[in-house]
Amino acid sequence: MHTKLNQLLSQLEQSVDESLGYPGAMDFDYRALYPFLDYSLNNVGDPFTATTYKLNTYAFEREVVEFYAKHTRAPADAWWGYVTNGGTEGNLYGLYLAREIYPQGIVYYSQDTHYSVSKNLHFLGMKNIMIRSQNNGEIDYDDLCETLKIRRDAAPIIFANIGTTMTEARDDLQKIREILEQLAITKYYIHSDAALSGGYLPFLERDDHWDFADGAHSISISGHKFIGSPIPCGIVLALKDNVDRISRTVAYIGSRDTTVTGSRNGFSPLLLWQALEQLGVDGLKRRAEKAQATAAYAVAQLQQVGVAAWRNNNALTVVFPQPTEKIRERWQLATADGISHVVCMPHIRRKQIDALVADIEASNREKQND
Amino acid sequence: MHTKLNQLLSQLEQSVDESLGYPGAMDFDYRALYPFLDYSLNNVGDPFTATTYKLNTYAFEREVVEFYAKHTRAPADAWWGYVTNGGTEGNLYGLYLAREIYPQGIVYYSQDTHYSVSKNLHFLGMKNIMIRSQNNGEIDYDDLCETLKIRRDAAPIIFANIGTTMTEARDDLQKIREILEQLAITKYYIHSDAALSGGYLPFLERDDHWDFADGAHSISISGHKFIGSPIPCGIVLALKDNVDRISRTVAYIGSRDTTVTGSRNGFSPLLLWQALEQLGVDGLKRRAEKAQATAAYAVAQLQQVGVAAWRNNNALTVVFPQPTEKIRERWQLATADGISHVVCMPHIRRKQIDALVADIEASNREKQND
Repeated sequence: MHTKLNQLLSQLEQSVDESLGYPGAMDFDYRALYPFLDYSLNNVGDPFTATTYKLNTYAFEREVVEFYAKHTRAPADAWWGYVTNGGTEGNLYGLYLAREIYPQGIVYYSQDTHYSVSKNLHFLGMKNIMIRSQNNGEIDYDDLCETLKIRRDAAPIIFANIGTTMTEARDDLQKIREILEQLAITKYYIHSDAALSGGYLPFLERDDHWDFADGAHSISISGHKFIGSPIPCGIVLALKDNVDRISRTVAYIGSRDTTVTGSRNGFSPLLLWQALEQLGVDGLKRRAEKAQATAAYAVAQLQQVGVAAWRNNNALTVVFPQPTEKIRERWQLATADGISHVVCMPHIRRKQIDALVADIEASNREKQND
Repeated sequence: MHTKLNQLLSQLEQSVDESLGYPGAMDFDYRALYPFLDYSLNNVGDPFTATTYKLNTYAFEREVVEFYAKHTRAPADAWWGYVTNGGTEGNLYGLYLAREIYPQGIVYYSQDTHYSVSKNLHFLGMKNIMIRSQNNGEIDYDDLCETLKIRRDAAPIIFANIGTTMTEARDDLQKIREILEQLAITKYYIHSDAALSGGYLPFLERDDHWDFADGAHSISISGHKFIGSPIPCGIVLALKDNVDRISRTVAYIGSRDTTVTGSRNGFSPLLLWQALEQLGVDGLKRRAEKAQATAAYAVAQLQQVGVAAWRNNNALTVVFPQPTEKIRERWQLATADGISHVVCMPHIRRKQIDALVADIEASNREKQND
């Protein structure tokens, strides 16, 4: 048994430094929380309601969601949320709420939307229309406007990407709401999928529009991305009125059955709680700025060796034409439609960027010599 | 920070010995696995397909699902499965598969079915009919037969409880298939929700019918119940043909997108793997027999003080009329419709049962004296 586990540990140890392509921060230390792994924790049901099962971490979960509610400018006392198993669950939850409010609604989402969303839509049986993207990955507002115009009979449900998977492009809720207003559409729902960007944008100077004050009805943010965690987790937040609509009392757990899953992980809320407690707003700000600086550095270094690298405004994701398969494999670079990306998470160091750039430069030189 | 965490630890320490009402084993020790919590593990997508992201535990996940496939008598090389975030996800997955195969199908499930199932059905937009239960919590086969008879136009999707929440009653797939045969229904789907019982029944002498050899098309088993785990988890298994129908290739992760969630917990598979590795079939058998003995003991002790306690054949759940609120609160007894239960998980000791019985006896004596 120990041999197999040790082999896995060395494999992980080996690949961790060359994992540049996925948006998970890896500079965490949760050892102080290990004693909690002695307990069968379960945050079954609603974190804001008491339950019979006492081995839970509701109080910590509430602090975590309150923190994010504040920083996504949720209306005071009119929001609800919980810690999820990751971004997909948060998106599923937002879309579920939207469907309950507008059963005949149509979901609009850009072609750059994460592959899991069309799966979610199929799951929930929601009508949907894919909208063209601009070159940077942001939704094409003209196409959105034209498409909405011909389906004004059905309430639109906008699935907004606040950071697309490949280019971390952000749809602009201000522009989207202007379109809705132009078309005199007053009944609509907006869900912001802010999986990666939602973790750090609140702590930067910025001009993006995606949170509750900008008109979102629900927001999903990943915990294992910007904060970093050994277990995928996330936060989903929604307007309370909409949540109340779907809740119902369940005798068995003595709790409101408002969450997607029944039994829920009670350890992840502790991970996020510790991180927020240790970092604080100042720490998160420094962390965000450091990652921004690394991303800017990566763009500059790649461009210097002739690679057409770029990034969206305030994005941690640096996009460039796909390098050779060997390089993509070594650095675990997510690749689609001829482009690859590096995600400059807070733990990524300049020397890792330098090594990747050197690899790409060498391979380009080889190609020229052929 | 440390004060708050220490407070939580003492609370947990205090309530753990008096937690008799929920089906989670608590006698686990996963310290050997803590080093893996240094890594951002993610078993994104299908455990049986290679992916670009290397920080995964697919190899261990496959061993875990293979173990359960074998012990639920899945047809060789014709099954598929993965480690879930718990029973609800496994049930959702089974129902999703059933819907894809029979979009116009009707789901039949007994009134003793876990509350999360009707939520799942609403989620998936599946037509459904609730069937009466017998007194012991098992589905009423006559009612099922009569109801199927009048809806022979729609393919039935049977959601079978292999251990209901309150009385751990098991629907019998042999009887259900006899009914289907009688009615000449050849197109149907059966999902077994074996959350608790599926964890130990394979290791006992028995005459129940619920696994693949008995006709199930998919099975959900919880990991945090009989095995025990600090994080809710589970195993879902399904016939491969049905899974292939819904899979599609996703460029981004370079993987088959067959799971419900995208990013998936890579730590839980290690927990289950270690437990199975350490216990082995013999250890699981001993563990199951010990828990059975405790359940028999609890029934006998309660009956001896005049409490009408009972349990279903081979069940770990001991059912009795609900005691006072004070007792329910102290021992965290799940209660519904006037009945409470104790779930005799492997870590429960006789002295805990004795203390509960003494509490109930004292309170009954008080009532008599009033």
